Amino acid sequence: MDQKERIVAQAMQMFVSEGIKSVRMDDIARQLGVSKRTLYELFGDKESLLYLALEHWFECKRLERERVSADAENVLEAMFRVLGCVMDDSESIQRLLGNLRKFYPGVYGRLLREGSSKSRQDLRSMLERGISDGLFVATINIDLAISVLYYTASAITDRKDLLLPAGMSEREAFVQIVSNFFRGISTPEGARLVDDYRKRYDPAGSRR
Amino acid sequence: MDQKERIVAQAMQMFVSEGIKSVRMDDIARQLGVSKRTLYELFGDKESLLYLALEHWFECKRLERERVSADAENVLEAMFRVLGCVMDDSESIQRLLGNLRKFYPGVYGRLLREGSSKSRQDLRSMLERGISDGLFVATINIDLAISVLYYTASAITDRKDLLLPAGMSEREAFVQIVSNFFRGISTPEGARLVDDYRKRYDPAGSRR
Repeated sequence: MDQKERIVAQAMQMFVSEGIKSVRMDDIARQLGVSKRTLYELFGDKESLLYLALEHWFECKRLERERVSADAENVLEAMFRVLGCVMDDSESIQRLLGNLRKFYPGVYGRLLREGSSKSRQDLRSMLERGISDGLFVATINIDLAISVLYYTASAITDRKDLLLPAGMSEREAFVQIVSNFFRGISTPEGARLVDDYRKRYDPAGSRR
Repeated sequence: MDQKERIVAQAMQMFVSEGIKSVRMDDIARQLGVSKRTLYELFGDKESLLYLALEHWFECKRLERERVSADAENVLEAMFRVLGCVMDDSESIQRLLGNLRKFYPGVYGRLLREGSSKSRQDLRSMLERGISDGLFVATINIDLAISVLYYTASAITDRKDLLLPAGMSEREAFVQIVSNFFRGISTPEGARLVDDYRKRYDPAGSRR
């Protein structure tokens, strides 16, 4: 890890624990023991450092999900393991993205565009593998399916007022929406697996 | 049918064929052979007449859907028949509602609230019947399911930019979204029926 990578990783830890707004370039320089001049030479400004820090953070999350799902028996098991990670991280990600949108809309927009293009590609490969493994029906339009899943999943937090029944947690809603989505595009074998994995990976939800 | 009902029905025909904005109280009085004074005495103003006319029109559509689905073998066949009506009407309804939202936002809001509360009730009864007939899984949260279906179905026209893959018609997207939604909450028996009815009632779509 070179100096730049080390600064990016450590600055991100500061952003996560202290908040992206309150951490200044001064604070980073002092805490990491580098001069402000070095910081500005390496990154230009705080927005650029913040962008790289978040990009690095999301890439770590992505690798973690790959690792977690690496030895899954099939794409559906992989998907349910990833879902678990997504839900565990969701609170800190929501908070970070909320502040980012508010205080650094430019960084937010760029990150979202690039992040969602990457995660669409990941989801696309997963759906294609599911089709060739006989778990998803071959007649679905994959692009439409991906858009619908993103649109509804993000509405759980963005349009709580419209979507969430009284007393239901976001986590419950997320599990039902994602499970129903995958059952909706599944073959009978796929649907059986969705029901099994939902019980195994979200035991509380399956009893509701 | 009394005079008021007759005026409501005939005014609606004028609104549909000539557009809600361009039909004035003058035009209605002249064409129906009643005095303007009678019109204002019966309805107060154009907005009130328009509201009653649209309410009557949507009630007719609703009765038509009930009639069309009355001898269906099960709720899923009923749903696919109703879907056919919805798609056939969708262009004229979109146009009407678009103009209504633009020119008479008050009427639009009131109609939408009452209409969506009625159609949510209809959908709720259908889902409950499907559960007791063993076609839908009993563990779904019905309120969440209804909200998700409305949210995504209305996005096909409202958020085309986000949802519709290039070259896909709204009709295709609608059939896939609704079919996947019902497969998502179906038992194996229900999912088999969805696939059968989709082929029977939308033969073009099933070959895509």
